Amino acid sequence: MIEAKASGNLSRAEAKTISFDEIFDIDNEVIVDLMPATQDGVRGRDIYMKAFRKGRHVVTANKAPLALHWAQIMEEAASRGGKMIRYEATVAGGVPLFSFRDYCITPSEVISFRGGIVSLTVNLVMRMMARGGHSFQEAVKYAQSMGVAETDYRDDTSGLDAARKTVILANSLFGLSMSLNDLYYEGIDEGKRYRSSSRMVSTVSVEGGRVRAESRVEELSQEDPLLSLPEESLAYIIETENNGKLMVRSERDGPLETAAAVVNDIVIMAREIC
Amino acid sequence: MIEAKASGNLSRAEAKTISFDEIFDIDNEVIVDLMPATQDGVRGRDIYMKAFRKGRHVVTANKAPLALHWAQIMEEAASRGGKMIRYEATVAGGVPLFSFRDYCITPSEVISFRGGIVSLTVNLVMRMMARGGHSFQEAVKYAQSMGVAETDYRDDTSGLDAARKTVILANSLFGLSMSLNDLYYEGIDEGKRYRSSSRMVSTVSVEGGRVRAESRVEELSQEDPLLSLPEESLAYIIETENNGKLMVRSERDGPLETAAAVVNDIVIMAREIC
Repeated sequence: MIEAKASGNLSRAEAKTISFDEIFDIDNEVIVDLMPATQDGVRGRDIYMKAFRKGRHVVTANKAPLALHWAQIMEEAASRGGKMIRYEATVAGGVPLFSFRDYCITPSEVISFRGGIVSLTVNLVMRMMARGGHSFQEAVKYAQSMGVAETDYRDDTSGLDAARKTVILANSLFGLSMSLNDLYYEGIDEGKRYRSSSRMVSTVSVEGGRVRAESRVEELSQEDPLLSLPEESLAYIIETENNGKLMVRSERDGPLETAAAVVNDIVIMAREIC
Repeated sequence: MIEAKASGNLSRAEAKTISFDEIFDIDNEVIVDLMPATQDGVRGRDIYMKAFRKGRHVVTANKAPLALHWAQIMEEAASRGGKMIRYEATVAGGVPLFSFRDYCITPSEVISFRGGIVSLTVNLVMRMMARGGHSFQEAVKYAQSMGVAETDYRDDTSGLDAARKTVILANSLFGLSMSLNDLYYEGIDEGKRYRSSSRMVSTVSVEGGRVRAESRVEELSQEDPLLSLPEESLAYIIETENNGKLMVRSERDGPLETAAAVVNDIVIMAREIC
């Protein structure tokens, strides 16, 4: 498949196309969803629900179902004898977060997720607009030439992609059942003049019993370790109950790193199944 | 126990002292070693060997046995039906590394451990000596007043403590059986004038089939993310096969964070036992 893609003949790769229902005729334990996000997340949700009913676990890289139907998916998983769902690749795939929470800092609750740079495209475009005053369109073209922005970049620059991630963060780290509609989020204002310290940052914290979850443009201070991140880099800072304040960053966050996150989910899930 | 220590009456805490052999009369599955390092690491080694023979697993925060008797300990663990030993707290306790390797980046071998700031005392003393030209003794006193340096600070400032950690890193990450004697390491030269960019850095990498493992003073470049670390902070950068180049850093690395690392080892080990 990889060879076929490299030679530009993906359609000639030896692969068998089957219908969604046929997935469940195969003897497997884990369904892996690598489909792109849809606007309503319904297709993914329905597959996961069916997977749980059919005794399967789920690993997904698809944000939409989780950002829109979190409660329904999690309740179904629980009600079917504790089926598992892992989704590392949905949020900053190259930077381990959910596996980090589940296996590296178990004596702690996460107190805050402060300063997550979770979306490459939106930050790269903003940085280009700040540097040398490139227009929005020029900046998008640059991000595309870097292999960062997709052809259809609107989900990224509108802030929707980062917002979906922030909802998943809030739900997973703080046990909430938020949906996209509950979140304040911003996108890139095409006419605005951004500074070199402007970044789209995801923040989820609990303050006085109330959860604050947002994805917005912030001006980072010179001391903020997120400011010096390279362009292709993602990172987050979490404050924990007993494991201190920790930062994890990737040097580069590309398709290979995201694919590795999916494989890691499958591996650690397989250990729990056996 | 914690209350007794806080009130300065540790000796009055309600605790029962038992001999090492009595540990094995208790119905337990995991032996936890929180003893300080000894020069030869023999006592710890013998307890672990016995633990494995008696069917126990081991969690340890004690560097000396692993830095000096790695091969012997690991062979015994393997030969007793795959007994487990976890040792997160031995190297930069507040920064998850071995659990990170085992659960967050499983599709990858670690290619290099580049730039680990793994020892607070030695770096804090060096930074004080650089800043305002404090003498070695003044810098040690400052580090002690910060609660970072221990009363007996020689293991730290001689570089021995960082060297022990580097040996454990090399063995664990690259499947080696090094001992302290195989490692090049440096300590603080009391008469030397350090710069503000000087740091004691642990590095383990494989170059042309040969392993390079060392713990030495390096001059960090302005772009090096390790340079901007706060004084009480530890961090490492690892390059992996498929999960990219990742950095993990703690904001503060103290006794609570190290204790949390021990508890995390116990929790993830308990999951594998059940």
